[in-house]
Amino acid sequence: MKLKLLLTGNELMTGDTIDSNSAMIAQMCLDQGVQVHYKACVSDDLSQLVNEIRRLTIETDVLIINGGLGPTQDDLTAQALAQVMGVELEEHPEALAHVKAWCTARHYELSEANRKQAFLPKGISLVANPEGTAVGFKANINGCLTICTPGVPHELRAMLKQQILTELSAMLPANIKPERSRLRVFGFGESSLQQHISDTYPDWPEQVELGFRASLPLMEVKLKVDYAEHHSLLQQWRANMRTLLGDHLVTEDHRSMAEVVIDLLQAQGKKITCAESCTGGLIASMITGVSGASTVFEAGFVTYANEIKSRVLGVSESDLAAHGAVSETVVRQMLSGALEASGADIGVAVSGIAGPDGGSAEKPVGTVWIAWGDQNAMHTRAFYFPGKRIFFQKMIAALALDLLRRELLQSKETPDYFERIKR
Amino acid sequence: MKLKLLLTGNELMTGDTIDSNSAMIAQMCLDQGVQVHYKACVSDDLSQLVNEIRRLTIETDVLIINGGLGPTQDDLTAQALAQVMGVELEEHPEALAHVKAWCTARHYELSEANRKQAFLPKGISLVANPEGTAVGFKANINGCLTICTPGVPHELRAMLKQQILTELSAMLPANIKPERSRLRVFGFGESSLQQHISDTYPDWPEQVELGFRASLPLMEVKLKVDYAEHHSLLQQWRANMRTLLGDHLVTEDHRSMAEVVIDLLQAQGKKITCAESCTGGLIASMITGVSGASTVFEAGFVTYANEIKSRVLGVSESDLAAHGAVSETVVRQMLSGALEASGADIGVAVSGIAGPDGGSAEKPVGTVWIAWGDQNAMHTRAFYFPGKRIFFQKMIAALALDLLRRELLQSKETPDYFERIKR
Repeated sequence: MKLKLLLTGNELMTGDTIDSNSAMIAQMCLDQGVQVHYKACVSDDLSQLVNEIRRLTIETDVLIINGGLGPTQDDLTAQALAQVMGVELEEHPEALAHVKAWCTARHYELSEANRKQAFLPKGISLVANPEGTAVGFKANINGCLTICTPGVPHELRAMLKQQILTELSAMLPANIKPERSRLRVFGFGESSLQQHISDTYPDWPEQVELGFRASLPLMEVKLKVDYAEHHSLLQQWRANMRTLLGDHLVTEDHRSMAEVVIDLLQAQGKKITCAESCTGGLIASMITGVSGASTVFEAGFVTYANEIKSRVLGVSESDLAAHGAVSETVVRQMLSGALEASGADIGVAVSGIAGPDGGSAEKPVGTVWIAWGDQNAMHTRAFYFPGKRIFFQKMIAALALDLLRRELLQSKETPDYFERIKR
Repeated sequence: MKLKLLLTGNELMTGDTIDSNSAMIAQMCLDQGVQVHYKACVSDDLSQLVNEIRRLTIETDVLIINGGLGPTQDDLTAQALAQVMGVELEEHPEALAHVKAWCTARHYELSEANRKQAFLPKGISLVANPEGTAVGFKANINGCLTICTPGVPHELRAMLKQQILTELSAMLPANIKPERSRLRVFGFGESSLQQHISDTYPDWPEQVELGFRASLPLMEVKLKVDYAEHHSLLQQWRANMRTLLGDHLVTEDHRSMAEVVIDLLQAQGKKITCAESCTGGLIASMITGVSGASTVFEAGFVTYANEIKSRVLGVSESDLAAHGAVSETVVRQMLSGALEASGADIGVAVSGIAGPDGGSAEKPVGTVWIAWGDQNAMHTRAFYFPGKRIFFQKMIAALALDLLRRELLQSKETPDYFERIKR
């Protein structure tokens, strides 16, 4: 079944608004087994709209038009559709009743602008809008089910849920039962992961579609089959992927790295702390961005200057002078100080050179030392991750959380982060 | 001049990725006086790509293709373009040299996947990518300048800036000399600002186009004229806007709130600290995300639990018990403790209820107390900003920095943040 989208709106063409509606439509339709095949976007221009509707309804089963149902004069979808259908606009009694009821319930007067929203192509069927004045409407054009939907996201969502998705599902062949798996991974780039997969599984089955999605700092590996008879194949290759990924696999649901770490801490009744230099508060921020973080996180320390590392975390001044702030000794003492000051059970300390300045021949920009664990079992490791400052900070903060995740899992693997980086 | 966009990517069609690239292209081109006329989006499907390139290059001056330049097998733009041009793909020596140099500089090995990125349509011209392995390329197809660009946003931006925009400008009629001003504002929503402007200036001149763009936490006000003879009018209305905005105006360039605050601190030779509860490290992270932050920032404290507020910052336990963590007394003591522990000249302390849990009738979710200033001149104020957790944290962290910005500017205005905030 072929589904196309047509979006209309000057604000989309100027870039003042980023279009998230088409992604919403695509995701909700995909879950029903219907894939968006094509997407076009035009400004609020009648002749452009008419031409696109004519063009897109040919050789398509369904066209969803989004936007242009509002009360203002640049809302032209009904007019364009009427022109394509070769009919007049007329006041639709049911649509008018909807607009009137909406206004009455809110003690609004029915404005001329609102009344315009009830002028629809003659003979059209309505699609109810439970959340706004703009009714949707649909018609069969050249054998294509053409559905006009409002641009306001929550109205669009309600309309899809309440009516449109059910209609689309009913149009599908009975044997289509799509199923998909998502595996969220840390420590691989897209190209190295693709290489690793092709090397390990040269016999990857064509029935299982493999895709990647950067969801920084994580990478999402997606497996998808279209038919019920391939569901077990999907599960088999999902298991293969689990084996291949090992503890690089962070989660098979939508949780973030911080959420996964917090869930592990909650399950084990542990509290976490962090001592941050080059990540500058980002690790704490990632943790506290999650609702319920207070159950596992009580204190974080951003010790950017050497003097503060000594004063707040008790790092030895002579060690700082002898080894520099980016050193194994210093991150070890930072972690120890943070654990003591916070009373936390486990923690991580990070010191590195985020750049663009501050690097040296011996310790170039991108060098970072991390200490993690507790007072009895403390681990340290140096990484080299050249990249722009913000990117470096994001990836290193995630890496720090990943080391804690592996520690909480008692992982025996040595993580092979971004394997192409020579150490 | 007619400019069309073609985006390619399965992740765009499935809705896994929300397309922000086309908005970026549209905005940057508009600033040069070139409007996007049409936008289409297809999946990584060779025949669909080929058909769309063929269709879109007809009756268009410029087509920008975005995406599909990556190293994986579903990156098909070069192949599609070669097919449309009727030429073979071949290894482009200059492109290969670029990919090699890129890998060498980062101590990566050159993979087969990367090498693929140098296979381009025979005889094509390159468009340099200063920020990634994927070179851009362009060709004249049916009289349409067709430019292929990478999907990674910062690479796309760099490529537009460095080469593409200049080429587009040169194609425009000589009398078109667009000029624009951007004023970045904190503390207004779009509709309240629009209302404020229409109330103050009912005689707004039609030659000066007024636009808004949410660039959270800031709001961007854009003024634009198309012709050289209107440049002075632009300057005049820019001055009017400055008067209207007062100290709500954060910057007239692209700096972030944190960059503006850091520049003020550097100019005044002052150091800053922060004590964060509900913002959980975000203020520190915003500051340390800026290169050179170490000149003004040495220490930040994330004191999430009450016990830590006492232990690390010396907040009185009895005051915590009597007034609660979200209180004037407590933020005052948090700030005092942070200034003392860090030795900083100025600072900010924040304690609030980010939600979704933890609110009460007296202090609902969205309540926050902020203290700012130094030991001698400390100010406090409560705000109420209901909103989802992450949004609340972002806006409150920016608000805290804005209070510091106004303090450093010795502003006499009382900021009127977001009309819906009850004080």
